[in-house]
Formats: sequence, C-alpha cells, structure tokens
Amino acid sequence: MNIVIVGLGVIGGSFAMGLKEAGYNNVFGVDVDEHTLTKAKSLGLIKEGCKTGESFFKEADLTILAIYPKLVKKFIEDNKENFKPGSVITDATGIKEMFIKDIIEILPKNVDFIFGHPMAGREKKGIDFATNDVFKGANYIITPIERNKKENLDLVENIALKMGFKRVKRITPEFHDEMIGFTSQLPHAMAVALINSDEEGRDTGSFIGDSYRDLTRIANINEELWSELFLGNKNNLLKAINNFELELDLIKKAIHDNDKETLMKYFRRSSARREKL
Amino acid sequence: MNIVIVGLGVIGGSFAMGLKEAGYNNVFGVDVDEHTLTKAKSLGLIKEGCKTGESFFKEADLTILAIYPKLVKKFIEDNKENFKPGSVITDATGIKEMFIKDIIEILPKNVDFIFGHPMAGREKKGIDFATNDVFKGANYIITPIERNKKENLDLVENIALKMGFKRVKRITPEFHDEMIGFTSQLPHAMAVALINSDEEGRDTGSFIGDSYRDLTRIANINEELWSELFLGNKNNLLKAINNFELELDLIKKAIHDNDKETLMKYFRRSSARREKL
Repeated sequence: MNIVIVGLGVIGGSFAMGLKEAGYNNVFGVDVDEHTLTKAKSLGLIKEGCKTGESFFKEADLTILAIYPKLVKKFIEDNKENFKPGSVITDATGIKEMFIKDIIEILPKNVDFIFGHPMAGREKKGIDFATNDVFKGANYIITPIERNKKENLDLVENIALKMGFKRVKRITPEFHDEMIGFTSQLPHAMAVALINSDEEGRDTGSFIGDSYRDLTRIANINEELWSELFLGNKNNLLKAINNFELELDLIKKAIHDNDKETLMKYFRRSSARREKL
Repeated sequence: MNIVIVGLGVIGGSFAMGLKEAGYNNVFGVDVDEHTLTKAKSLGLIKEGCKTGESFFKEADLTILAIYPKLVKKFIEDNKENFKPGSVITDATGIKEMFIKDIIEILPKNVDFIFGHPMAGREKKGIDFATNDVFKGANYIITPIERNKKENLDLVENIALKMGFKRVKRITPEFHDEMIGFTSQLPHAMAVALINSDEEGRDTGSFIGDSYRDLTRIANINEELWSELFLGNKNNLLKAINNFELELDLIKKAIHDNDKETLMKYFRRSSARREKL
C-alpha cells in the first residue's frame, strides 16, 4: 500500500514514525519546507519527499493530511484531479462538523475521505518534536459520514491500532465536537487564562508545585492552529466554558459562605470522577 | 540531632524518607495509626514510634508537624510542657497568615516555630504513598516571623536543601498566602470544577488526551485537608479565582466575536509566559 503524508510537522512526522514502526514501507512525504523533507528522508521515515506531491497522489492508496484545518480545503481543490480513483484520504483535524461540511462540498466523488482525530500531540511545532510515543495508549476518533465505505473506515481504524492507539471510537461529527470542546478545548482555554491571570513581577516560578506546572503545560500553544480550532467549534466551546464557570462559581460561593460541608461534597465528587477515569 | 515527625502520612512519611537519605539517623515518629508506625519502623524510617510522643519531644531538637492544619493548635496546647527548651518546631501547612496568628497566641516562649511549606505532595493519603522523590527539585517556602532566630531559620533551610529541594524562599506569611492562592489553590479549584462540569453518561474517558488528564489529576483531592486550606485562605483564593475568570471571559468574548487576532494575542502571551517558567 502506498501512503502519502501531507505535512510532516509534529503530527505528520509522528504518523511517519508510527507507520514505519508498524511496518509500512511505501510512505511518501509532502511538505513546503525543504529541511523537513531532508530530515524525514534521512531518518528513513519516507521513501521520497516533495514540495507539491501530484505524482505521489496519483499512486497513493491512502493520503494522510496533517496540515492546518484551513489549508485542507485548498489542498483538496488544488489536487482534485490528482487523487487515485478509489483511494482514501484521512486527516488529523481537531474539529469536525463545520470542517466536514466545507470539505464534502468540494470533494471529488471517486475518493473516500475518512475523517479522523488522533487524540495525541505535543505543545511544540515541527518535525524536530515529532514522536510516535505520544500515540501509544492514546485515543483515536473516527467520525464516519454517510458516503464512507466500511472497508475504508476499517482501514483507518486498523492503521491507528497498529500504530499503538489503544481505543478507536466511531462517533458523529456533532458528538465529536461536543466532547472535544469539553475534553480538549476547554482545558486549553483554562490553561491560557490561568497563566495570563498571573500578575507581573511576582517571581511566580519560585512558588509553584506540580499542580501549576501541569495546569499550564498546554498554555504553550500553537496560536495559529488553536485559534482556528476554537473558532471552528465556537458554540460547543462556549457551552463547555459556561458549564465550567458555573461549577467554579459554586466553589466560590461555598468558600465565600465558609461552607466546609459543601466544599467537601464537591471534592468527593471530583475525586470519585477522577478515580473512575 | 534528635528529630520527631508528628504525622507519618504522605507528607510526614516523605520527610522521614528524605531525612534518612540525607543522613539523619535519630528520627522518631508519632502517629495515631498503629499500622503506620509499624511500617515506618520496618522500613527503617524511624528509630522508634509512638502514638503520643511526650517522651520524644522532651529530647527532640527539631519537631516536624505533618498533620492537618486544624490539629496543629491542639497539638501545641497538649504538649506545651513537653518541648525541649530552645528546640525548634516546623510544619508543612499550606496556609500561613491566619494559621500563624492562631499558633503564636499559644506557643510557649522557649521554643522557636519556623513556619515552612514544602511545595510538593501527592493526591493520595497515607504512608503507603509517601516518597521523597517528590521533594527533589521542588520549591520550599519559609515564612519567618519576628521572634524566629536566624540559626533556626537556617537549620530548616539546610535540612530542606539536604532533602533535595531546589529552592528555599523566605517570604512573609501574607505574600505566601497570596502566591499559594494563585499557584496552588486556584489550580485545585479549577481541576475540581472542570471534572465536576462533565455531563453524566458521555463515556468521557474515550475522548480525552493528555490535556484533560493533566488538568484533572489534582481533582482527586483530600477533601478534609483542602477544604481547610481553601477556607483558611479565603480572600486570596477568591481574588485569584476572580482574576482567572476575568481572563477566561476575555477568551470567551474573543470566541464569541470571531476575533482571531485577539485570541492569537492571548495565546502568544500565554506561550511566552509558559516558556519563561
């Protein structure tokens, strides 16, 4: 099977590593950055690399897109004549509902786009930070649409499992966005707000423990990508933030009222939920 | 030097391990739990253990209190006749201003209480989860008060450094509580609110990545201890929560307004702050 990865950044590069480890040898790479291509080839992650990839797509059974969400549409438009008929495209985009609607409008009928979301990544950008270690034991989501063929859904699922993902769930794009608004985007918004709410000049670094370190790790964030993700899932994210603020306000009220019993009740609930996770 | 640790739970037990590794051999333990004392002794962490400790205190040059904040006052009252004159007491309490005022009122004149806060811990309770690994590279805060002797402040600082703490800062109790409200208590309140704001029955565990895992780790929380800490630092914590909510509301507004530029500005600020940490 011929596979092309478009975008060999931190995610695409990790895919290349995961595929190599899983035994796929005919993997090709497309990236606008010359250094990235050279590095991917010298690491043995791709057989050949190129900046545009038309010739690769004509032979590719599977095209993996690991580029910014807003670039996917342009990529499909630019290459609609180039895809091998009957081939499969998949992606790694963190939002689905609006994104899929956009893509479906322009997608050629002779290719099958399996929309996927590997729930693993790193704060850093670029192939230098790529590692398939983050895939191991992680969750993978596929959001099937009506026109997807079962064998193609199975193909993407099997590759994910071979690369070390622990669970592959198939859910609707709508449910994906609702869940991701809560489990991924809300934590990122919280981390950013936490560190941005620090007052200047307090030498905060001398007064932190693991909790502050853990809760702000993802405040180091790819601003281009995450602003797209936030705005592409606006309503779900706003709902998740509002629900979170309601809970935080309950804690605030209990503190304000010196209500130890109620605080302890919230803590017992959160502990039970965390243990179950 | 004779040292007594009062409370051999997750923190006191970690102290015992840290002291052992640092070469202190005359360490004694006090705990209400028989199993804990047996375990501490069988691990070679204490020379002798006992449930009350009067005889230990009479010989102790340093008494380390690793018990719940509200038990410290009762401990001092019960033992005010027992302390060796000129000896030092220190603690591990996560709040200082109100706490110190309470203690100072009843503290015998012939002992010197050095108030300290090792900024390391675990979510779990009890000696079974104790490990001095959490001390290594961590921050330690001492909040000197007027009656403290310099040599006793230095003693506690040196022991902290010998146990592997990286930085020991001396600050006022007021500043301690302000900083801890922000760096420790706020993250705990956020983690609890995050996991409690999840809706039931969504199989959330299948849709999480490292971010949700990291941000909810401390939602598994000792309810007795943390309700005391929250209420004992009420005003600072409420202020920290309010500042955080203001930042989160800015993010919400930018999302609501589809204002990508502003979102990216917040993300650049948070990334720069996190890198500096």
